[in-house]
Amino acid sequence: MVVILKEHPNEKQLENLKNWLGSLGLEIHTSTGAKHTILGLVGDTSVVDIDLIKALDIVEEVKRIQEPFKNANRKFHPKDTVVDVGGVKLGGGNFQFIAGPCSVETEAQICSIAQSVKKGGAGFLRGGAFKPRTSPYAFQGLRAEGIRLLLEAKKETGLPIVTELMDLNQLEYFDDIDVIQVGARNMQNFELLKELGHLRKPILIKRGMAGTLQELLMSAEYVMAGGNEQVILCERGIRTYETYTRNTLDLSAVPVLKSMTHLPVVIDPSHATGKAGLVRSMSLAAAAAGADGLMIEVHNDPQHALCDGPQSITPEAFDALAENVRQILPFCQYSYE
Amino acid sequence: MVVILKEHPNEKQLENLKNWLGSLGLEIHTSTGAKHTILGLVGDTSVVDIDLIKALDIVEEVKRIQEPFKNANRKFHPKDTVVDVGGVKLGGGNFQFIAGPCSVETEAQICSIAQSVKKGGAGFLRGGAFKPRTSPYAFQGLRAEGIRLLLEAKKETGLPIVTELMDLNQLEYFDDIDVIQVGARNMQNFELLKELGHLRKPILIKRGMAGTLQELLMSAEYVMAGGNEQVILCERGIRTYETYTRNTLDLSAVPVLKSMTHLPVVIDPSHATGKAGLVRSMSLAAAAAGADGLMIEVHNDPQHALCDGPQSITPEAFDALAENVRQILPFCQYSYE
Amino acid sequence: MVVILKEHPNEKQLENLKNWLGSLGLEIHTSTGAKHTILGLVGDTSVVDIDLIKALDIVEEVKRIQEPFKNANRKFHPKDTVVDVGGVKLGGGNFQFIAGPCSVETEAQICSIAQSVKKGGAGFLRGGAFKPRTSPYAFQGLRAEGIRLLLEAKKETGLPIVTELMDLNQLEYFDDIDVIQVGARNMQNFELLKELGHLRKPILIKRGMAGTLQELLMSAEYVMAGGNEQVILCERGIRTYETYTRNTLDLSAVPVLKSMTHLPVVIDPSHATGKAGLVRSMSLAAAAAGADGLMIEVHNDPQHALCDGPQSITPEAFDALAENVRQILPFCQYSYE
Amino acid sequence: MVVILKEHPNEKQLENLKNWLGSLGLEIHTSTGAKHTILGLVGDTSVVDIDLIKALDIVEEVKRIQEPFKNANRKFHPKDTVVDVGGVKLGGGNFQFIAGPCSVETEAQICSIAQSVKKGGAGFLRGGAFKPRTSPYAFQGLRAEGIRLLLEAKKETGLPIVTELMDLNQLEYFDDIDVIQVGARNMQNFELLKELGHLRKPILIKRGMAGTLQELLMSAEYVMAGGNEQVILCERGIRTYETYTRNTLDLSAVPVLKSMTHLPVVIDPSHATGKAGLVRSMSLAAAAAGADGLMIEVHNDPQHALCDGPQSITPEAFDALAENVRQILPFCQYSYE
Repeated sequence: MVVILKEHPNEKQLENLKNWLGSLGLEIHTSTGAKHTILGLVGDTSVVDIDLIKALDIVEEVKRIQEPFKNANRKFHPKDTVVDVGGVKLGGGNFQFIAGPCSVETEAQICSIAQSVKKGGAGFLRGGAFKPRTSPYAFQGLRAEGIRLLLEAKKETGLPIVTELMDLNQLEYFDDIDVIQVGARNMQNFELLKELGHLRKPILIKRGMAGTLQELLMSAEYVMAGGNEQVILCERGIRTYETYTRNTLDLSAVPVLKSMTHLPVVIDPSHATGKAGLVRSMSLAAAAAGADGLMIEVHNDPQHALCDGPQSITPEAFDALAENVRQILPFCQYSYE
Repeated sequence: MVVILKEHPNEKQLENLKNWLGSLGLEIHTSTGAKHTILGLVGDTSVVDIDLIKALDIVEEVKRIQEPFKNANRKFHPKDTVVDVGGVKLGGGNFQFIAGPCSVETEAQICSIAQSVKKGGAGFLRGGAFKPRTSPYAFQGLRAEGIRLLLEAKKETGLPIVTELMDLNQLEYFDDIDVIQVGARNMQNFELLKELGHLRKPILIKRGMAGTLQELLMSAEYVMAGGNEQVILCERGIRTYETYTRNTLDLSAVPVLKSMTHLPVVIDPSHATGKAGLVRSMSLAAAAAGADGLMIEVHNDPQHALCDGPQSITPEAFDALAENVRQILPFCQYSYE
Repeated sequence: MVVILKEHPNEKQLENLKNWLGSLGLEIHTSTGAKHTILGLVGDTSVVDIDLIKALDIVEEVKRIQEPFKNANRKFHPKDTVVDVGGVKLGGGNFQFIAGPCSVETEAQICSIAQSVKKGGAGFLRGGAFKPRTSPYAFQGLRAEGIRLLLEAKKETGLPIVTELMDLNQLEYFDDIDVIQVGARNMQNFELLKELGHLRKPILIKRGMAGTLQELLMSAEYVMAGGNEQVILCERGIRTYETYTRNTLDLSAVPVLKSMTHLPVVIDPSHATGKAGLVRSMSLAAAAAGADGLMIEVHNDPQHALCDGPQSITPEAFDALAENVRQILPFCQYSYE
Repeated sequence: MVVILKEHPNEKQLENLKNWLGSLGLEIHTSTGAKHTILGLVGDTSVVDIDLIKALDIVEEVKRIQEPFKNANRKFHPKDTVVDVGGVKLGGGNFQFIAGPCSVETEAQICSIAQSVKKGGAGFLRGGAFKPRTSPYAFQGLRAEGIRLLLEAKKETGLPIVTELMDLNQLEYFDDIDVIQVGARNMQNFELLKELGHLRKPILIKRGMAGTLQELLMSAEYVMAGGNEQVILCERGIRTYETYTRNTLDLSAVPVLKSMTHLPVVIDPSHATGKAGLVRSMSLAAAAAGADGLMIEVHNDPQHALCDGPQSITPEAFDALAENVRQILPFCQYSYE
């Protein structure tokens, strides 16, 4: 961390600052120029509250050199994290499809889709039971009953389940769920993240619509600081001025995140674009960019899906897409370790 | 609501659609052009899930004419909502300052600031007990103890308290809190909003960093749909590409919101800009734009605030600012009723 | 085009509106609902100035159904445009690499890079002679001399040249340039676009940092309206709140543009990311998404490039990347015709 | 400028870097920490191409302390610039209204509006002759004839004229125009800016839709580097994800720019919001924030304006607004000198 002081800092305040930084266990290297004095801080600066220093009268600017995340940081943990759910592996060279409907509707629906996507090569079944909806008057998901139906589908197909938790009070229903999803709107629901840090179960965190990549990693850090090291990151589009697609899928997030962290990174092209017609191209692009997996909405009857139908593809389209992704994967290998 | 059909829609599907819309109690007016057929839907369309219709093969586009919010809608409730906390009124021509430190630190600190801002004309005391922080390693607030100190300050000064709730599990501490704040990161924490709808206590909802004005109103609608009609909206800057200020304060939100809804609108210039030096100008601008109140960070020792110091102003600066705002308010009157 | 009228429109004004629309050669279909009257306009609405109608007192909203671009519209020209420069084809299934340095520096430099990228499979040589730089104190390019050196490189290698024109007064130097590039900052320099419409030479238009896809197509339309139908579109990243990459590469622009227009679409991963380390992954992703070509910065000595060095890759890296792209292309085929 | 080196920099490369920096006339202060070596550069760093240094293998990061603009920088020119057009002063405490129609339509129209806004207190007449329009099929302005009509209105009223130049080839018509406007889409049309630097006539530069405040100042620097010191900056809304208003008016730009530069700052609430109903509130807010002037669209018949009608206000509304602004100005004084 580099602290750039204003011209002619108050001597007393400067001594106070140095003493305080020293008390945090940091070594201080002072460099005095014609106008500006610069303090170089050496040691574990991830514990330093950067705002506290910026607040000081005598400080012009503070610049981190080290990233403020530790557990999620590839520099300290070079080897790829592999999330392993009963033998289904994600990350570290293991590519996975997480497929299923936006919302769980009926037992027949979820079981039929589960069978289909399993045949197409999906490693995980996804499906919404607790649904975050902008309007209080829109369908809110089958909730606890939806979880029950997902577990039925798991029993039938053996596919591990990924589904969203919206509030800590719903946690009681998630005992047999394999991967807990934290939605984009909850990326910075810090109380939720802290609590999930006490579980020993994979957590898939979606990037918020205005979330920076560093903030996404800090949210992963919240979970990991609690001791839960199985975190999966998911890019699902960010909010920009362009309105043709629902959100703007930021695929450069894949190589950037992979270089910053050892955690697996998956892409959700369905929510990002909001259009079924763009799912195949964005899935291929995500795989080509080095993603560890894809989260794809599949519905056996997209015309009658209870929500988000326009972005769901049919099981047949999923089969073709998955086959296509498998064809290009061998040519799209990267090493970040 | 207007549904624009694709060319040559399948007759059977069109009949199905019309039957379904009719079953929702909507009247349908069909207009057949050379290329496109248009359905005009008349009735209470706020219950219609627009995505369901968009999903249909035969539909080109759907356009709402009515807004999807009812309780918050000025069209249905033309008169300004006045939030009244033990005689301290906000909205409907009653301008209020909500002032206090970013974080509660000690009893001496919060009581001293409370005395100061009361003298300066503040109607409410603000202060963070539960603090949302990007890093798990940063100071997380005094939490329950912070709430206790806020209530001490209330006892001493009589000022009603505004403070943030981050999770439903913290609700037990908020019995004597006067206004519950929902932070920007929780604007779309729908389970939280639903639960707050069952209280009979004012809820101040901050606009999310990527929240549209309509989404903010939909979040208010979540609370109001539960029967709690005392909602205050707060603009605190949105995330844009400009990095000079922490966020970009969107002051046009004031007249836009005031025309769309009867709920009071307050502005938080401190968080929006992240710079104490911009608080006075943005406060005057907010008042000039027609805001119902200002939420301002005041600290008796900004240099040693435990968080967000750079944006706090001193009690003396607050006094001057408040006086200045009172000078221009008489010239900045608007009528939206 | 659909015009939604306000409730109880003034009869006289409505008649005026209908007469005016009729005078533009449009057929009008009126649909009267309980609250709103809707006018459906049939005919060539691309000539209608939508703002003129929105301005009217009696109009609630206007909604285009047809896109406002004609020459660039795939609906009217389903077949892919193929840009052919002396046998080097781009578009319609012909994938091309446009490679070269950010800036032309010396004859030795540009000729050496030209030889290298030709060997690696590039179909076009790119290089900046007139350079748009944020600072008036930064290197502004070799200008006319740079053009001369590019033409030397063309003579030596036979590679057609793509280079940027910043102002009409520079046009005199571009006689022997094969493809004229309009930079992102000039995407809406309408006078420039109009003039380029009078040439019979391919124009590559880069999407502006805040340009929507529709605006990009309208800029292409400016060129095409002048009779010049050889337009290439280039996505090079848009400006968002994320600062880790220089811009956010919007790869969904590829399938979206390809479905809206018959013009070729190329991707510039170098400028979009601003980081050499991201060029390979974003190039593969672009090819996988269905782009018609890649525009890549290659420098034989990126450490000493006169500008934008951090995003340039070496000729060796370009060779490997190009080979890699060719491997996946056969699996990433799309049909939009 | 602070250059942070990577760990274990190559000795030879480091020596090269130091020699080169020395050759630019900079003093170098080296500070060696446990991990990172930091070079503090002292001297006129505005001539240093920051990208050149960032490009070096041994460099981790470069951080400017001084801003890269000099002529526009308040640090070097603390006193407010006052633009004086034949006695009509703008800046340095002189507030001005720049009012008039979006487009010049007829002599009667422009003269009538000019008379009206003069009576209402406008110091300048604005009106578009050369109009930048997204569509090549939309009305492009009366062009040279429009300039002629503006000069007629000037003759009649004595009001100095502000109007937009879109291309250098139009410059011949601008001899008698008092203030040349550079539109948002041309903010980074560097060739245009350079040429305007050779004039001795005020240039009003609008912030681009994706322009940062620093980029706006760099564009002013382009003009000033040519010796033309009369530059007026104009904020007119930036492009964000919020679509309710046409753009998002960034009023914090006023105090930020005023602190960074001595140049006058005006606000255009008409284009920013795109809605006549928001012009009064945003005008008052801009004045309250400390703007030096307002640029407002006024039309005597907004219902029949040839373009941008929805955001024009009537002369009567302008009178009331101007009166209202004058009432609050005495209470909204700031000092940045």
